[in-house]
Amino acid sequence: MTTITAILAAAERAKGHVRRTPLLSSPFLDEIAGKRVLIKAECLQHTGSFKFRGAWAALTALDPERRAGGVLAFSSGNHAQGVALAARMHGVPAVIVMPADAPQVKLANTRALGAEVVTYDRVTQDREAIGQALATARNLTLVKPYDAEMTIAGQGTCGLEIAQQAQEIGVDRAAVLVPCGGGGLTSGIAVALAALAPDMQVMPVEPQGFDDVARSLATGSPQRNASLSGSICDAIVTPTPGVLTFPLMQRHCARGLVVSDAQALQAVARAFERLRIVVEPGGAVALAAALTQARDIAADTVIAVASGGNIDAATMAQALAMQN
Amino acid sequence: MTTITAILAAAERAKGHVRRTPLLSSPFLDEIAGKRVLIKAECLQHTGSFKFRGAWAALTALDPERRAGGVLAFSSGNHAQGVALAARMHGVPAVIVMPADAPQVKLANTRALGAEVVTYDRVTQDREAIGQALATARNLTLVKPYDAEMTIAGQGTCGLEIAQQAQEIGVDRAAVLVPCGGGGLTSGIAVALAALAPDMQVMPVEPQGFDDVARSLATGSPQRNASLSGSICDAIVTPTPGVLTFPLMQRHCARGLVVSDAQALQAVARAFERLRIVVEPGGAVALAAALTQARDIAADTVIAVASGGNIDAATMAQALAMQN
Repeated sequence: MTTITAILAAAERAKGHVRRTPLLSSPFLDEIAGKRVLIKAECLQHTGSFKFRGAWAALTALDPERRAGGVLAFSSGNHAQGVALAARMHGVPAVIVMPADAPQVKLANTRALGAEVVTYDRVTQDREAIGQALATARNLTLVKPYDAEMTIAGQGTCGLEIAQQAQEIGVDRAAVLVPCGGGGLTSGIAVALAALAPDMQVMPVEPQGFDDVARSLATGSPQRNASLSGSICDAIVTPTPGVLTFPLMQRHCARGLVVSDAQALQAVARAFERLRIVVEPGGAVALAAALTQARDIAADTVIAVASGGNIDAATMAQALAMQN
Repeated sequence: MTTITAILAAAERAKGHVRRTPLLSSPFLDEIAGKRVLIKAECLQHTGSFKFRGAWAALTALDPERRAGGVLAFSSGNHAQGVALAARMHGVPAVIVMPADAPQVKLANTRALGAEVVTYDRVTQDREAIGQALATARNLTLVKPYDAEMTIAGQGTCGLEIAQQAQEIGVDRAAVLVPCGGGGLTSGIAVALAALAPDMQVMPVEPQGFDDVARSLATGSPQRNASLSGSICDAIVTPTPGVLTFPLMQRHCARGLVVSDAQALQAVARAFERLRIVVEPGGAVALAAALTQARDIAADTVIAVASGGNIDAATMAQALAMQN
């Protein structure tokens, strides 16, 4: 189980390599929310999402000899780029298993970061089997996207920064809203804040129809989503909470919040206009909840994590078109 | 003449109020430029541009009694919002003189920050006369946008941060490219770096056709632009270098660089895509020069200031449409 000790150790290994992202604010957003809103701009992290934190923590925790053999990840998105860059910065090979029909720009970006991309057919092939065969044949170490101790510890370094940056401006009591897929970021931040800022309450935020974590927290047992596609917040859609992340969220988190795709897109537009940051829809769900549901939250201050910024021009145009 | 002592004093007064903006980078931008590129994301400053630094420095330098009487500024853009917010944070009145035909959103935003907006007719009325009459009648203090010691000192705090952040990552030799209008930001940064990072060379960057500073530096005497409209980089178009800023730029700056509107828009798109920041065309000219002219610059590292992010959705859409 990931502890504050593991998170502090990951932070030590991250120094000078992982970016300390800023905590932003705007009087215009405070006015919409009806209370103070602070935004942890994790979209400004290397490769545009918090995933680099977990990848860095995982790679730096490996025995150097094992690491030199290379790493493997499954991902069509942010985790792929985080692992690819962390591997490149270590000078070790990275193999990323991606669906052959992933957007060309994602395939190209992952390759441009120096990774070898192995594609598979989503319909006829089993990516786990392909990955396992590759890992064995080539002695690669799998870096999991969320359900692994070191990944969670790495994401938890974001929570350390939140505690510290909030304290610098005199905030010690707040609701901390976190975009939640498998729960790596949410549980990491929750462990960090439980130790260092116990008056902060972490709330996972999910897209409508894909609220497995909210329902799991409400019922006390892991729930599954009926579908895995159909949300514009695709980056944070996962089937069910992680085996390691769920108990951490159960222990440390308050109830989960849910926002619509339209609210997520509106939050993308507000972040563009008022904070001058680029946030993808899945990364904007916490800000969306802060802007639409802050009045139902007891704390005077809401901290929303903007977890990723890998949005294409067409989706941004869609968000800006509904701006007013 | 603004000195490093004045800049250090402004930085002291800015602590906890002015944001320390991050120094960003992307391997994709390094590849385009052919060398290391670091971006000082000043678009993440309060009100979306560096102008808040100068406004804060000017207001905090005023005698409290005089400040309580209120401040006045002429501006249809970033300076207006910087002064409005700095005044609100001090709880003093701000009057902003703006053209009646300024975009509604700019008038509304300035009012929403608590300022009283006084409009004038660009064609038939003289804004200086209106401002002078208001200042006298209501005992307001004028906050100039660039040609004032305290404004320059405030903008210079951006240079202090650049020196410190570059040093943290081991960079002490670099060309520092700065979007240049009246020269407040350029001269402030140049004074700061001359004192604290003497191996950095500051180069002002202007839009094609509005390169009064580049020509003034080349000829040794203040030159004027033939026109004051027609660039998409409108935020940094001014008639001629400032009386105070030009001597500072002459003493401390290298030659000026010039970029086209198309290059500025491409830089807006690259900043969106690779850094996840929102930059306006005028704020992107330094990044544009870094991406297109870095090979003509001797230094191994180019630091580009992204000075503002107040861009409307239509202009961003235009930039993203020419993305590839």
